[in-house]
Amino acid sequence: MSHMNFRCLEISRWVVCGLIGFLTGLIACFIDIAVEELAGIKYQVVKKNIENFTEVGGLSISLLLWAVLNSAIVMVGGIIVAFFEPIAAGSGIPQIKCYLNGVKIPRVVRLKTLVVKVAGVICSVVGGLAVGKEGPMIHSGAVVAAGVSQGRSTSLKRDFKIFEYFRRDTEKRDFVSAGAAAGVSAAFGAPVGGVLFALEEGASFWNQMLTWRIFFASMISTFTLNIFLSVYNKNPGDLSNPGLINFGRFPVDGVAYNFYEIPLFIAMGAIGGLLGALFNILNYWLTIFRIRYVHRPCLQVMEAMLVAAVTATVSFTMIYFSNDCQPLGPEDKKEYPLQLFCADGEYNSMATTFFNTPERSVHSLFHNQPGTYNPLTLGLFTLTYFFLACWTYGLAVSAGVFIPSLLIGAAWGRLCGFLLAAITTPAPLWADPGKYALIGAAAQLGGIVRMTLSLTVIMVEATGNVTYGLPIMLVLMTSKIVGDYFVEGLYDIHIKLQSIPFLHWEAPATSHWLTAREVMSSPVTCLNRIEKVGTIVDTLSNTSTNHNGFPVVVQVSGSDEPEKLCGLILRSQLIVLLKHKVFVELARSRLTHRKLQLKDFRDAYPRFPPIQSIHVSQDERECMMDLTEFMNATPYTVPQETSLPRVFKLFRALGLRHLVVVDDENRVVGLVTRKDLARYHIGKHGLEELQLAQT
Amino acid sequence: MSHMNFRCLEISRWVVCGLIGFLTGLIACFIDIAVEELAGIKYQVVKKNIENFTEVGGLSISLLLWAVLNSAIVMVGGIIVAFFEPIAAGSGIPQIKCYLNGVKIPRVVRLKTLVVKVAGVICSVVGGLAVGKEGPMIHSGAVVAAGVSQGRSTSLKRDFKIFEYFRRDTEKRDFVSAGAAAGVSAAFGAPVGGVLFALEEGASFWNQMLTWRIFFASMISTFTLNIFLSVYNKNPGDLSNPGLINFGRFPVDGVAYNFYEIPLFIAMGAIGGLLGALFNILNYWLTIFRIRYVHRPCLQVMEAMLVAAVTATVSFTMIYFSNDCQPLGPEDKKEYPLQLFCADGEYNSMATTFFNTPERSVHSLFHNQPGTYNPLTLGLFTLTYFFLACWTYGLAVSAGVFIPSLLIGAAWGRLCGFLLAAITTPAPLWADPGKYALIGAAAQLGGIVRMTLSLTVIMVEATGNVTYGLPIMLVLMTSKIVGDYFVEGLYDIHIKLQSIPFLHWEAPATSHWLTAREVMSSPVTCLNRIEKVGTIVDTLSNTSTNHNGFPVVVQVSGSDEPEKLCGLILRSQLIVLLKHKVFVELARSRLTHRKLQLKDFRDAYPRFPPIQSIHVSQDERECMMDLTEFMNATPYTVPQETSLPRVFKLFRALGLRHLVVVDDENRVVGLVTRKDLARYHIGKHGLEELQLAQT
Repeated sequence: MSHMNFRCLEISRWVVCGLIGFLTGLIACFIDIAVEELAGIKYQVVKKNIENFTEVGGLSISLLLWAVLNSAIVMVGGIIVAFFEPIAAGSGIPQIKCYLNGVKIPRVVRLKTLVVKVAGVICSVVGGLAVGKEGPMIHSGAVVAAGVSQGRSTSLKRDFKIFEYFRRDTEKRDFVSAGAAAGVSAAFGAPVGGVLFALEEGASFWNQMLTWRIFFASMISTFTLNIFLSVYNKNPGDLSNPGLINFGRFPVDGVAYNFYEIPLFIAMGAIGGLLGALFNILNYWLTIFRIRYVHRPCLQVMEAMLVAAVTATVSFTMIYFSNDCQPLGPEDKKEYPLQLFCADGEYNSMATTFFNTPERSVHSLFHNQPGTYNPLTLGLFTLTYFFLACWTYGLAVSAGVFIPSLLIGAAWGRLCGFLLAAITTPAPLWADPGKYALIGAAAQLGGIVRMTLSLTVIMVEATGNVTYGLPIMLVLMTSKIVGDYFVEGLYDIHIKLQSIPFLHWEAPATSHWLTAREVMSSPVTCLNRIEKVGTIVDTLSNTSTNHNGFPVVVQVSGSDEPEKLCGLILRSQLIVLLKHKVFVELARSRLTHRKLQLKDFRDAYPRFPPIQSIHVSQDERECMMDLTEFMNATPYTVPQETSLPRVFKLFRALGLRHLVVVDDENRVVGLVTRKDLARYHIGKHGLEELQLAQT
Repeated sequence: MSHMNFRCLEISRWVVCGLIGFLTGLIACFIDIAVEELAGIKYQVVKKNIENFTEVGGLSISLLLWAVLNSAIVMVGGIIVAFFEPIAAGSGIPQIKCYLNGVKIPRVVRLKTLVVKVAGVICSVVGGLAVGKEGPMIHSGAVVAAGVSQGRSTSLKRDFKIFEYFRRDTEKRDFVSAGAAAGVSAAFGAPVGGVLFALEEGASFWNQMLTWRIFFASMISTFTLNIFLSVYNKNPGDLSNPGLINFGRFPVDGVAYNFYEIPLFIAMGAIGGLLGALFNILNYWLTIFRIRYVHRPCLQVMEAMLVAAVTATVSFTMIYFSNDCQPLGPEDKKEYPLQLFCADGEYNSMATTFFNTPERSVHSLFHNQPGTYNPLTLGLFTLTYFFLACWTYGLAVSAGVFIPSLLIGAAWGRLCGFLLAAITTPAPLWADPGKYALIGAAAQLGGIVRMTLSLTVIMVEATGNVTYGLPIMLVLMTSKIVGDYFVEGLYDIHIKLQSIPFLHWEAPATSHWLTAREVMSSPVTCLNRIEKVGTIVDTLSNTSTNHNGFPVVVQVSGSDEPEKLCGLILRSQLIVLLKHKVFVELARSRLTHRKLQLKDFRDAYPRFPPIQSIHVSQDERECMMDLTEFMNATPYTVPQETSLPRVFKLFRALGLRHLVVVDDENRVVGLVTRKDLARYHIGKHGLEELQLAQT
């Protein structure tokens, strides 16, 4: 390929990344506006009814109305997820982590998944569940990236005949990481955080130009969202909505925090770690329960509806019993003030917290004046929301756990700030409860998801204040250390429960004495360089050899020397070859036979037909196939004595899927796949989880 | 090694990173305070004299005094660099880039280098050269890291017997990248930018925990600097000095920029790219001239003094001829106002620009009210400072090019803002020249150094305003694209001129048809697994086989089969083995002979003695050495047909230094080293540069 061609490719990559950013930003914008509009309508309906019924005393009716309304909305979201595209459930972050890690999960980046995801998240949020719309943005961005970069939609059966070069795993994965970054960027207004997220989860091999393109996609994404939202808010050019969630401006002038507050922050980080671990353990048990008993779609929808009804009931009860009335100042532009049982000119702050979108509640907890919430409200809210959020995560609805975590943390963080101020009275040193709400939010989120660098940067960018970088980092470190002592992060738990061969950063610490010989699968099915079609078909059809790569060996004809490794060929390549009947005999007989081109492989990507769908006649089975020009002639190999960490590093650094283990004579003795590495890892920590997930 | 041991190691790594951050912050603090104090003294002396002499008309005397004073200070800096540690010259960024890339440059991370660097940069800045103190911080941080992580100082002959595990290349390199990040962080108050710098320049294999530690070091570094500087400024707890350079607060509220300004920003990026390319080309010619004619230390010192004198003269002339007098407002707390030829109650703004430390000038250009500078002043200043900075970079003084670039850019950027405001009068749309100064600064810096992601984040963090992220990114992209069209970045030019085998991100675009066979060095000197000492000594002494790694081969005894690869051993390992006389005969005769331990290799690291210093008697030459247990028994290998990009990727992803090329029979046919890859790359672009640098 010429130099000019490479330049064209490079430009296409930039164009694709720009498109990914733009479309991801648009989707974020669409979700935001849809949620706002629908929530507004719902609020009007409920408010009117509550006001009517409160006067006539029919409280139970208004509760019923609210609960039914929410359940109905959630039902819609549950049905489309459970019946049409179960992979769209949850936040999608575990799935994207796996995809970027190199594990192919079926249907995870399809158009249908995106549509269900977007519609589902709108239903979940409008339905009043304890969820956020941020996590799903990451999945959405990834799907957009996978679609745009391929220049076609297999679902819609449209091929735009562009970007054909990108129809391969490595290129697609790079774009998907850009899409995930664009999603983070749009969700939190954090372009740098998005890049770091993509790197933390995806890139094993750091490439400067790739990173730069990812950053470009992120920037375009947040900028697109910002422009469209500012137009929607009738304030074009304002550019104050870089993300779906806006933490609001923390004061940048003056003393942000004092040196002696740092131990307090660290203590809060420890609390966050403990609560996060509790959350994860409860959710782990719940998920096992669900895997065992709630695996039928209709049951899943019913559970989602139940949660929606319970959420509404709990909220209603708490609003009913709370007397936390706050004066409604004239300048106080609350969007959804509910008077309820308060005096005129006042509003119920608990109702505000429950009725708002969670994003707005986080904002209020960060920024409302000291005294807006009373401690009892905050304590009760933390408690109930904690269990509701825990119950909600893992339902068959499309929703994220970021915002609920932030909200729980902000509530108890604000409570901490309140208590500190109370203790140090009459000279309240730490007057700003918003600051403690922020620290608490970081601690709780860190304790649940256990992200590190990217989360710090996301929080700092969402806060818009670099000064809080150090405390946020310390809090996240503490909560991770404390949390890791008890249990893994929420995403890792869910990845494990799906028994996915996920490769972590490093080989297990004590694995240095293990060698490739012990880890590898053996014996391996090898193919000859010129192989009988029947053998190939049988090999591919054999369910016990369900490998995706086969070493190709050659025997020097006439000698009794052992067979030597000469290449590696993929299952998908073999299938395309079989489909086009690239047999030696045919090539000889029909001179006009079209030569198989790279294009044929690209066209089949990524949905290669199964072997069963390819018909091979009995005559054809006797033909031969010459694999020489299609196989990878220089596969990566290691000697048998290579240590596991070294094998692991090769896999991670080069993004390998198959590694051939050879002996001194260059004979194939085994094959290491991701599963071999991951299985070992899982086996070390607890094999029972794996077995359970397979039932 | 047990699991517990790994945990201890992990904790040590964190402690080391904390220490690196703390010490780097302290050094930054020391440099800042020393510069401030010395500059204050110099200002007092010069001001007094200028005032005296201006009245009596002895202008030439005060010029002379100023020039002599500056030259004298620069002389001190020049002497210590040129005579004691030439590697401390310049910003050190090219050297650190090379180190992190895997190239060992002698003496680059020694204590002596650090001392000279710190003293040198203080002299350069106080001597009034057009330089900054930021670049050298990165080098300083790297030296601190290399020192702290080894737990000893070979120069001071002190061994603290700690961190012995880290005495190996890979660990040390990781810490050095943390040190470089801490340096960036302290220089610009940009901890995330520091991490990204370290990743861009150093990490080929992304590791989550490593990145997290690097971030920790960066955070500690900026925090340390912040605390100590706030104490120095008698405002403890203020925490408003996160970096050596402070861009000051840009307004965070309201409209930062408008959508239609973006094309203007991009145009400014193009200007920055052009000017940057011009700068680099001029500096390239100058450097070639210096390599040819100014290579004696005393000449280098004299050149530095000459530049100092010329800088002083030019400044003085411009101050003399400029009539840019500005009123000295009562609230205007200029630190160094010079009245000079202005009326009472006014000060000369040109003098302020020239007399201030460059950091403060940048700050003024960003934030002073519109109208503070007149356009002629700015134009003249841009012109002169451009050439002065270009002349200065590459002198035998320790100094950076970041701040001069920013200053040049800020000057012409402000000029652009001024012109735009003038054009759009009477309704000046773009009223804030500070904003244009910022964009110009980014454009100019990007055009010169061509950093991408890390520079964007550094600029955003230094600005403290996330809103400017998009324009800064676009400007940096444009300036890089435009600049790259003409010439490489300044650091890359200097790396090339030193003919260092630097590996870029990817193999050259058109190299896919090249295979390992064409790239490798062949034939290779191999050693037998049990080899005669004499052969080893001869091999190591042979200057034509100056490889650092040797394949170890084995022949099945009695057979006539070819020799097979069984391992790889490093020159340094062989030297330690020879030094300790680990000979088979000795081991047999003396049963009490101490077994060579890992510790012996660590103790020798990193200054392995040359082979000439090891005495081997004639009898010993006849002994045999068994390399089995010391060699790397599973070296990375590739077949001969492996393409260059694949070889390249292995080198970059795994940080390799040697890659053995084998044939089908596992026989050694060649060895690929970094030089083989880099030489090819250099050869493609222009071999004459390489030859020139070798003279």
